[in-house]
Amino acid sequence: MNDLRPPAEDRPVAPGIPEATVARLPLYLRALTALGETGLRTVSSEQLATAAGVNSAKLRKDLSYLGSYGTRGVGYDVEYLRYQIAREIGLNEDWAVVIIGIGNLGQALSNYGGFRSRGFRIVSLVDGDPARVGEQHGDLVIESMSDLDRIVKENDISIGVIATPGDAAQGVADRLVSAGVTSILNFAPAVLTVPSGIDVRKVDLSIELQILAYHEQRKRLPGEVRS
Amino acid sequence: MNDLRPPAEDRPVAPGIPEATVARLPLYLRALTALGETGLRTVSSEQLATAAGVNSAKLRKDLSYLGSYGTRGVGYDVEYLRYQIAREIGLNEDWAVVIIGIGNLGQALSNYGGFRSRGFRIVSLVDGDPARVGEQHGDLVIESMSDLDRIVKENDISIGVIATPGDAAQGVADRLVSAGVTSILNFAPAVLTVPSGIDVRKVDLSIELQILAYHEQRKRLPGEVRS
Repeated sequence: MNDLRPPAEDRPVAPGIPEATVARLPLYLRALTALGETGLRTVSSEQLATAAGVNSAKLRKDLSYLGSYGTRGVGYDVEYLRYQIAREIGLNEDWAVVIIGIGNLGQALSNYGGFRSRGFRIVSLVDGDPARVGEQHGDLVIESMSDLDRIVKENDISIGVIATPGDAAQGVADRLVSAGVTSILNFAPAVLTVPSGIDVRKVDLSIELQILAYHEQRKRLPGEVRS
Repeated sequence: MNDLRPPAEDRPVAPGIPEATVARLPLYLRALTALGETGLRTVSSEQLATAAGVNSAKLRKDLSYLGSYGTRGVGYDVEYLRYQIAREIGLNEDWAVVIIGIGNLGQALSNYGGFRSRGFRIVSLVDGDPARVGEQHGDLVIESMSDLDRIVKENDISIGVIATPGDAAQGVADRLVSAGVTSILNFAPAVLTVPSGIDVRKVDLSIELQILAYHEQRKRLPGEVRS
Protein backbone atom coordinates (compact mmCIF):
# COMPACT_ATOMS: atom_id res chain seq x y z
CA MET A 1 0.00 0.00 0.00
CA ASN A 2 1.17 3.48 -0.85
CA ASP A 3 1.03 6.05 1.93
CA LEU A 4 0.00 8.74 -0.55
CA ARG A 5 -3.49 7.28 -0.33
CA PRO A 6 -5.75 8.71 2.34
CA PRO A 7 -9.15 7.08 2.64
CA ALA A 8 -10.91 6.87 -0.73
CA GLU A 9 -14.64 7.47 -0.99
CA ASP A 10 -14.99 4.52 -3.30
CA ARG A 11 -12.55 2.07 -1.75
CA PRO A 12 -14.63 0.03 0.70
CA VAL A 13 -12.90 -2.23 3.21
CA ALA A 14 -14.90 -5.30 2.21
CA PRO A 15 -17.03 -6.35 3.93
CA GLY A 16 -16.84 -3.44 6.36
CA ILE A 17 -17.42 0.27 6.30
CA PRO A 18 -16.35 2.63 3.47
CA GLU A 19 -12.88 4.13 4.02
CA ALA A 20 -14.26 7.67 4.05
CA THR A 21 -16.63 6.73 6.86
CA VAL A 22 -13.80 5.11 8.82
CA ALA A 23 -11.85 8.36 8.51
CA ARG A 24 -14.78 10.34 9.95
CA LEU A 25 -15.44 8.05 12.94
CA PRO A 26 -12.57 9.60 14.99
CA LEU A 27 -14.06 13.06 14.30
CA TYR A 28 -17.46 11.95 15.61
CA LEU A 29 -15.78 10.42 18.64
CA ARG A 30 -13.90 13.65 19.35
CA ALA A 31 -17.10 15.70 19.01
CA LEU A 32 -19.08 13.31 21.24
CA THR A 33 -16.36 13.42 23.90
CA ALA A 34 -16.44 17.23 23.93
CA LEU A 35 -20.27 17.31 23.97
CA GLY A 36 -20.33 14.72 26.76
CA GLU A 37 -17.95 16.87 28.81
CA THR A 38 -20.49 19.70 28.68
CA GLY A 39 -22.98 17.37 30.40
CA LEU A 40 -25.12 16.68 27.32
CA ARG A 41 -26.90 13.29 27.52
CA THR A 42 -28.54 13.17 24.08
CA VAL A 43 -27.63 14.89 20.84
CA SER A 44 -29.51 15.44 17.59
CA SER A 45 -27.89 14.46 14.32
CA GLU A 46 -27.80 18.18 13.41
CA GLN A 47 -25.96 19.11 16.63
CA LEU A 48 -23.47 16.30 16.27
CA ALA A 49 -22.98 17.02 12.57
CA THR A 50 -22.22 20.67 13.33
CA ALA A 51 -19.79 19.76 16.11
CA ALA A 52 -18.01 17.28 13.84
CA GLY A 53 -18.10 19.54 10.78
CA VAL A 54 -19.99 17.32 8.35
CA ASN A 55 -23.50 17.60 6.99
CA SER A 56 -26.19 15.76 8.91
CA ALA A 57 -27.30 13.50 6.04
CA LYS A 58 -23.74 12.20 5.73
CA LEU A 59 -23.54 11.72 9.51
CA ARG A 60 -26.75 9.68 9.58
CA LYS A 61 -25.51 7.56 6.67
CA ASP A 62 -22.17 6.97 8.40
CA LEU A 63 -23.79 5.97 11.67
CA SER A 64 -26.21 3.65 9.89
CA TYR A 65 -23.18 1.46 8.99
CA LEU A 66 -22.79 0.95 12.74
CA GLY A 67 -26.46 0.01 13.05
CA SER A 68 -27.02 3.25 14.95
CA TYR A 69 -30.08 5.21 13.93
CA GLY A 70 -30.91 7.32 17.00
CA THR A 71 -34.45 7.89 18.27
CA ARG A 72 -36.82 10.15 16.34
CA GLY A 73 -37.39 13.41 18.24
CA VAL A 74 -34.69 12.55 20.78
CA GLY A 75 -31.54 11.90 18.81
CA TYR A 76 -28.57 9.81 19.88
CA ASP A 77 -27.54 8.85 23.40
CA VAL A 78 -24.12 10.52 23.74
CA GLU A 79 -22.45 7.89 25.93
CA TYR A 80 -23.84 4.90 24.07
CA LEU A 81 -22.89 6.30 20.67
CA ARG A 82 -19.37 6.98 21.98
CA TYR A 83 -19.18 3.38 23.09
CA GLN A 84 -20.48 2.10 19.74
CA ILE A 85 -17.98 4.13 17.73
CA ALA A 86 -15.03 3.31 20.01
CA ARG A 87 -15.92 -0.37 19.74
CA GLU A 88 -16.20 -0.16 15.95
CA ILE A 89 -12.79 1.52 15.65
CA GLY A 90 -11.32 -1.01 18.06
CA LEU A 91 -10.46 1.48 20.82
CA ASN A 92 -11.92 -0.82 23.45
CA GLU A 93 -8.90 -3.02 22.87
CA ASP A 94 -5.50 -2.17 24.26
CA TRP A 95 -3.08 -1.32 21.43
CA ALA A 96 0.61 -1.69 22.19
CA VAL A 97 2.71 0.81 20.21
CA VAL A 98 6.46 1.18 19.67
CA ILE A 99 7.96 4.56 18.74
CA ILE A 100 11.16 4.51 16.72
CA GLY A 101 13.34 7.62 16.62
CA ILE A 102 13.47 9.38 19.99
CA GLY A 103 14.37 12.92 18.93
CA ASN A 104 12.19 15.87 19.93
CA LEU A 105 9.21 14.54 17.98
CA GLY A 106 9.55 11.00 19.35
CA GLN A 107 9.76 12.36 22.88
CA ALA A 108 6.76 14.61 22.31
CA LEU A 109 4.77 11.64 20.98
CA SER A 110 5.80 9.46 23.93
CA ASN A 111 4.33 12.10 26.28
CA TYR A 112 1.20 12.74 24.19
CA GLY A 113 -1.82 12.23 26.46
CA GLY A 114 -4.18 11.84 23.51
CA PHE A 115 -2.77 8.39 22.72
CA ARG A 116 -3.34 6.73 26.08
CA SER A 117 -6.83 8.16 26.45
CA ARG A 118 -7.79 6.42 23.17
CA GLY A 119 -6.44 3.01 24.10
CA PHE A 120 -2.93 3.36 22.65
CA ARG A 121 -0.19 2.37 25.06
CA ILE A 122 3.40 3.25 24.23
CA VAL A 123 5.28 0.17 25.42
CA SER A 124 8.71 0.78 23.94
CA LEU A 125 10.96 3.58 22.70
CA VAL A 126 13.66 2.55 20.22
CA ASP A 127 16.49 4.60 18.75
CA GLY A 128 19.06 3.75 16.10
CA ASP A 129 21.83 5.60 17.95
CA PRO A 130 23.57 3.14 20.35
CA ALA A 131 24.62 6.10 22.53
CA ARG A 132 20.95 6.81 23.32
CA VAL A 133 20.13 3.27 24.45
CA GLY A 134 19.44 3.18 28.20
CA GLU A 135 18.23 6.80 28.43
CA GLN A 136 15.22 7.07 30.72
CA HIS A 137 12.07 8.81 29.42
CA GLY A 138 9.18 8.68 31.86
CA ASP A 139 8.58 5.01 32.67
CA LEU A 140 10.50 3.78 29.63
CA VAL A 141 14.14 3.29 28.74
CA ILE A 142 15.34 3.70 25.15
CA GLU A 143 16.00 0.28 23.62
CA SER A 144 18.21 -0.82 20.75
CA MET A 145 17.11 -1.43 17.15
CA SER A 146 18.84 -4.81 17.39
CA ASP A 147 16.23 -5.84 19.98
CA LEU A 148 13.26 -4.85 17.81
CA ASP A 149 12.17 -8.41 16.94
CA ARG A 150 12.08 -9.39 20.60
CA ILE A 151 10.33 -6.15 21.64
CA VAL A 152 7.57 -6.60 19.06
CA LYS A 153 6.98 -10.24 19.95
CA GLU A 154 7.11 -9.87 23.72
CA ASN A 155 4.66 -6.98 23.73
CA ASP A 156 2.38 -8.21 20.91
CA ILE A 157 2.93 -4.91 19.08
CA SER A 158 1.02 -4.43 15.83
CA ILE A 159 1.51 -0.65 15.42
CA GLY A 160 4.83 1.12 14.92
CA VAL A 161 5.33 4.89 14.87
CA ILE A 162 8.27 6.19 12.83
CA ALA A 163 9.66 9.53 14.06
CA THR A 164 13.12 9.31 12.50
CA PRO A 165 14.70 11.64 9.94
CA GLY A 166 13.45 11.01 6.40
CA ASP A 167 16.49 9.10 5.17
CA ALA A 168 16.20 6.50 7.93
CA ALA A 169 12.47 5.88 7.58
CA GLN A 170 12.41 3.18 4.87
CA GLY A 171 15.01 1.08 6.65
CA VAL A 172 13.05 1.35 9.89
CA ALA A 173 9.81 0.43 8.08
CA ASP A 174 11.49 -2.69 6.64
CA ARG A 175 12.69 -3.69 10.13
CA LEU A 176 9.22 -3.13 11.61
CA VAL A 177 7.57 -5.26 8.94
CA SER A 178 10.07 -8.09 9.32
CA ALA A 179 9.52 -7.99 13.10
CA GLY A 180 5.79 -8.55 12.51
CA VAL A 181 4.30 -5.04 12.79
CA THR A 182 1.36 -4.66 10.37
CA SER A 183 0.44 -0.96 10.79
CA ILE A 184 2.83 1.98 10.52
CA LEU A 185 2.21 5.62 11.40
CA ASN A 186 4.85 7.64 9.56
CA PHE A 187 5.87 11.11 10.77
CA ALA A 188 9.09 11.11 8.75
CA PRO A 189 9.26 13.16 5.53
CA ALA A 190 9.54 10.10 3.29
CA VAL A 191 7.27 7.98 1.12
CA LEU A 192 7.42 4.38 2.34
CA THR A 193 7.13 1.21 0.28
CA VAL A 194 5.71 -1.75 2.20
CA PRO A 195 4.35 -5.20 1.26
CA SER A 196 0.63 -5.58 0.65
CA GLY A 197 -1.31 -6.24 3.85
CA ILE A 198 0.69 -3.60 5.74
CA ASP A 199 -1.18 -0.36 6.43
CA VAL A 200 0.74 2.92 6.38
CA ARG A 201 -0.67 6.32 7.32
CA LYS A 202 1.44 9.42 6.90
CA VAL A 203 1.01 12.45 9.10
CA ASP A 204 1.72 15.75 7.36
CA LEU A 205 1.84 18.41 10.06
CA SER A 206 1.58 21.18 7.45
CA ILE A 207 -1.88 20.21 6.13
CA GLU A 208 -3.76 22.16 8.80
CA LEU A 209 -1.41 25.14 8.38
CA GLN A 210 -2.20 25.16 4.67
CA ILE A 211 -5.93 25.35 5.42
CA LEU A 212 -5.28 28.30 7.77
CA ALA A 213 -3.20 29.98 5.06
CA TYR A 214 -6.09 29.75 2.62
CA HIS A 215 -8.34 31.60 5.05
CA GLU A 216 -5.66 34.16 5.95
CA GLN A 217 -5.17 34.93 2.30
CA ARG A 218 -8.89 35.55 1.86
CA LYS A 219 -8.98 37.83 4.92
CA ARG A 220 -6.41 39.99 3.16
CA LEU A 221 -8.33 40.32 -0.10
CA PRO A 222 -9.68 43.87 -0.49
CA GLY A 223 -13.46 44.14 -0.31
CA GLU A 224 -13.85 40.52 0.71
CA VAL A 225 -16.84 39.74 2.91
CA ARG A 226 -16.04 37.19 5.62
CA SER A 227 -18.67 34.57 6.24
CA MET B 1 -15.25 29.84 16.02
CA ASN B 2 -15.10 26.50 17.73
CA ASP B 3 -12.08 24.32 16.96
CA LEU B 4 -14.23 21.21 17.09
CA ARG B 5 -15.35 22.09 13.59
CA PRO B 6 -13.30 20.64 10.77
CA PRO B 7 -14.30 21.66 7.26
CA ALA B 8 -18.04 21.22 6.70
CA GLU B 9 -19.33 19.99 3.35
CA ASP B 10 -22.08 22.55 3.43
CA ARG B 11 -20.28 25.53 4.94
CA PRO B 12 -18.96 27.49 1.95
CA VAL B 13 -16.46 30.30 2.49
CA ALA B 14 -18.52 32.85 0.58
CA PRO B 15 -17.70 33.76 -2.14
CA GLY B 16 -14.89 31.24 -2.34
CA ILE B 17 -14.51 27.51 -2.46
CA PRO B 18 -16.45 25.02 -0.29
CA GLU B 19 -14.64 24.19 2.97
CA ALA B 20 -14.47 20.49 2.11
CA THR B 21 -12.71 21.35 -1.15
CA VAL B 22 -10.27 23.64 0.69
CA ALA B 23 -9.43 20.74 3.01
CA ARG B 24 -8.66 18.49 0.02
CA LEU B 25 -6.41 20.96 -1.84
CA PRO B 26 -3.37 20.16 0.37
CA LEU B 27 -3.91 16.45 -0.40
CA TYR B 28 -3.89 17.14 -4.15
CA LEU B 29 -0.79 19.27 -3.73
CA ARG B 30 0.98 16.49 -1.82
CA ALA B 31 0.02 13.91 -4.47
CA LEU B 32 1.11 16.19 -7.34
CA THR B 33 4.45 16.85 -5.64
CA ALA B 34 5.06 13.08 -5.27
CA LEU B 35 3.96 12.39 -8.87
CA GLY B 36 6.14 15.25 -10.14
CA GLU B 37 9.13 13.77 -8.33
CA THR B 38 8.70 10.56 -10.34
CA GLY B 39 9.17 12.62 -13.52
CA LEU B 40 5.51 12.60 -14.58
CA ARG B 41 4.61 15.66 -16.71
CA THR B 42 0.86 15.13 -17.16
CA VAL B 43 -1.62 13.22 -15.07
CA SER B 44 -5.16 11.97 -15.72
CA SER B 45 -7.89 12.82 -13.24
CA GLU B 46 -8.11 9.10 -12.44
CA GLN B 47 -4.39 8.85 -11.65
CA LEU B 48 -4.41 11.96 -9.52
CA ALA B 49 -7.61 10.91 -7.75
CA THR B 50 -6.08 7.54 -6.86
CA ALA B 51 -2.87 9.15 -5.59
CA ALA B 52 -4.88 11.61 -3.47
CA GLY B 53 -7.40 9.03 -2.29
CA VAL B 54 -10.61 10.61 -3.56
CA ASN B 55 -12.91 9.60 -6.37
CA SER B 56 -12.22 11.19 -9.73
CA ALA B 57 -15.61 12.89 -10.11
CA LYS B 58 -15.03 14.72 -6.82
CA LEU B 59 -11.51 15.65 -7.91
CA ARG B 60 -12.76 17.14 -11.20
CA LYS B 61 -15.46 19.08 -9.33
CA ASP B 62 -12.91 20.39 -6.82
CA LEU B 63 -10.49 21.50 -9.52
CA SER B 64 -13.27 23.17 -11.48
CA TYR B 65 -13.55 25.70 -8.61
CA LEU B 66 -9.99 26.70 -9.50
CA GLY B 67 -10.97 27.06 -13.16
CA SER B 68 -8.85 24.02 -13.92
CA TYR B 69 -10.42 21.48 -16.25
CA GLY B 70 -7.45 19.65 -17.78
CA THR B 71 -7.26 18.65 -21.44
CA ARG B 72 -9.41 15.85 -22.79
CA GLY B 73 -7.29 12.76 -23.55
CA VAL B 74 -4.21 14.36 -21.95
CA GLY B 75 -5.19 15.27 -18.41
CA TYR B 76 -3.63 17.93 -16.21
CA ASP B 77 -0.16 19.46 -16.51
CA VAL B 78 1.46 18.41 -13.21
CA GLU B 79 3.61 21.51 -12.68
CA TYR B 80 0.95 24.00 -13.72
CA LEU B 81 -1.73 22.38 -11.55
CA ARG B 82 0.68 22.43 -8.59
CA TYR B 83 1.22 26.12 -9.20
CA GLN B 84 -2.53 26.79 -9.46
CA ILE B 85 -3.33 24.96 -6.22
CA ALA B 86 -0.43 26.51 -4.30
CA ARG B 87 -1.55 29.96 -5.48
CA GLU B 88 -5.15 29.26 -4.49
CA ILE B 89 -4.13 28.13 -0.99
CA GLY B 90 -1.82 31.13 -0.68
CA LEU B 91 1.42 29.18 -0.48
CA ASN B 92 3.09 31.51 -2.96
CA GLU B 93 3.08 34.08 -0.18
CA ASP B 94 5.54 33.98 2.67
CA TRP B 95 3.77 33.21 5.96
CA ALA B 96 5.51 34.27 9.16
CA VAL B 97 4.70 31.93 12.05
CA VAL B 98 5.37 32.10 15.79
CA ILE B 99 5.52 28.92 17.90
CA ILE B 100 4.56 29.26 21.56
CA GLY B 101 5.64 26.57 23.99
CA ILE B 102 9.13 25.25 23.25
CA GLY B 103 9.00 21.81 24.84
CA ASN B 104 9.75 18.68 22.82
CA LEU B 105 6.81 19.27 20.50
CA GLY B 106 7.61 22.97 19.95
CA GLN B 107 11.21 22.10 19.19
CA ALA B 108 10.14 19.32 16.81
CA LEU B 109 7.82 21.75 15.02
CA SER B 110 10.54 24.40 14.78
CA ASN B 111 12.74 21.86 12.95
CA TYR B 112 9.95 20.46 10.75
CA GLY B 113 11.08 20.73 7.13
CA GLY B 114 7.53 20.38 5.82
CA PHE B 115 6.65 23.91 6.99
CA ARG B 116 9.36 25.84 5.17
CA SER B 117 8.88 23.90 1.94
CA ARG B 118 5.23 25.05 1.89
CA GLY B 119 5.95 28.73 2.46
CA PHE B 120 5.73 28.80 6.26
CA ARG B 121 8.65 30.52 7.95
CA ILE B 122 9.09 30.12 11.71
CA VAL B 123 10.27 33.60 12.72
CA SER B 124 9.99 33.37 16.50
CA LEU B 125 9.97 30.85 19.34
CA VAL B 126 8.28 32.01 22.55
CA ASP B 127 8.07 30.28 25.92
CA GLY B 128 6.22 31.22 29.09
CA ASP B 129 9.09 30.08 31.32
CA PRO B 130 11.45 33.05 31.90
CA ALA B 131 14.31 30.60 32.55
CA ARG B 132 14.07 29.39 28.93
CA VAL B 133 14.32 32.85 27.37
CA GLY B 134 17.60 33.29 25.53
CA GLU B 135 18.07 29.57 24.73
CA GLN B 136 19.36 29.08 21.19
CA HIS B 137 17.47 26.71 18.85
CA GLY B 138 18.88 26.65 15.35
CA ASP B 139 18.84 30.26 14.07
CA LEU B 140 16.37 31.42 16.71
CA VAL B 141 16.55 32.39 20.36
CA ILE B 142 13.60 31.74 22.69
CA GLU B 143 11.80 35.01 23.40
CA SER B 144 9.58 36.11 26.26
CA MET B 145 5.76 36.09 26.32
CA SER B 146 5.96 39.72 27.47
CA ASP B 147 7.45 40.61 24.06
CA LEU B 148 4.69 38.89 22.08
CA ASP B 149 2.95 42.09 20.92
CA ARG B 150 6.21 43.50 19.55
CA ILE B 151 7.19 40.16 17.96
CA VAL B 152 3.87 39.81 16.12
CA LYS B 153 3.93 43.40 14.85
CA GLU B 154 7.58 43.53 13.81
CA ASN B 155 7.31 40.28 11.85
CA ASP B 156 3.80 40.78 10.47
CA ILE B 157 2.77 37.42 11.95
CA SER B 158 -0.77 36.24 11.25
CA ILE B 159 -0.40 32.58 12.28
CA GLY B 160 0.42 31.33 15.77
CA VAL B 161 1.15 27.72 16.70
CA ILE B 162 0.33 26.67 20.27
CA ALA B 163 2.45 23.78 21.57
CA THR B 164 1.98 24.37 25.31
CA PRO B 165 0.43 22.03 27.88
CA GLY B 166 -3.37 22.02 27.76
CA ASP B 167 -3.94 24.23 30.79
CA ALA B 168 -1.84 27.07 29.34
CA ALA B 169 -3.40 27.03 25.87
CA GLN B 170 -6.41 29.33 26.36
CA GLY B 171 -4.30 32.04 27.99
CA VAL B 172 -1.80 31.85 25.14
CA ALA B 173 -4.62 32.00 22.57
CA ASP B 174 -5.97 35.15 24.25
CA ARG B 175 -2.51 36.75 24.14
CA LEU B 176 -2.05 35.81 20.47
CA VAL B 177 -5.42 37.30 19.52
CA SER B 178 -4.78 40.53 21.43
CA ALA B 179 -1.39 40.78 19.72
CA GLY B 180 -3.14 40.65 16.32
CA VAL B 181 -2.75 37.03 15.23
CA THR B 182 -5.84 35.87 13.29
CA SER B 183 -5.11 32.15 12.74
CA ILE B 184 -4.16 29.64 15.40
CA LEU B 185 -2.94 26.07 14.96
CA ASN B 186 -3.53 24.31 18.27
CA PHE B 187 -1.52 21.23 19.25
CA ALA B 188 -2.46 21.51 22.93
CA PRO B 189 -5.10 19.13 24.35
CA ALA B 190 -7.61 21.92 24.99
CA VAL B 191 -10.68 23.37 23.30
CA LEU B 192 -10.08 27.06 22.62
CA THR B 193 -12.62 29.86 22.64
CA VAL B 194 -11.74 32.77 20.36
CA PRO B 195 -13.59 35.79 18.96
CA SER B 196 -15.34 35.49 15.61
CA GLY B 197 -13.03 36.21 12.69
CA ILE B 198 -10.23 34.17 14.27
CA ASP B 199 -9.60 30.77 12.67
CA VAL B 200 -8.53 27.88 14.87
CA ARG B 201 -7.52 24.43 13.65
CA LYS B 202 -6.76 21.70 16.12
CA VAL B 203 -4.33 18.92 15.38
CA ASP B 204 -5.20 15.59 17.00
CA LEU B 205 -2.21 13.32 16.56
CA SER B 206 -4.29 10.26 17.48
CA ILE B 207 -6.72 10.48 14.54
CA GLU B 208 -4.47 8.58 12.14
CA LEU B 209 -3.66 6.01 14.83
CA GLN B 210 -7.38 5.41 15.29
CA ILE B 211 -7.77 4.71 11.56
CA LEU B 212 -4.90 2.21 11.77
CA ALA B 213 -6.54 0.58 14.81
CA TYR B 214 -9.75 0.05 12.83
CA HIS B 215 -7.83 -1.86 10.16
CA GLU B 216 -5.76 -3.80 12.70
CA GLN B 217 -8.92 -4.91 14.43
CA ARG B 218 -10.33 -6.18 11.14
CA LYS B 219 -7.12 -8.06 10.34
CA ARG B 220 -7.65 -9.98 13.59
CA LEU B 221 -11.22 -11.02 12.86
CA PRO B 222 -11.39 -14.74 12.12
CA GLY B 223 -12.32 -15.60 8.54
CA GLU B 224 -12.08 -11.98 7.45
CA VAL B 225 -11.07 -11.44 3.82
CA ARG B 226 -8.69 -8.51 3.39
CA SER B 227 -9.38 -6.29 0.40
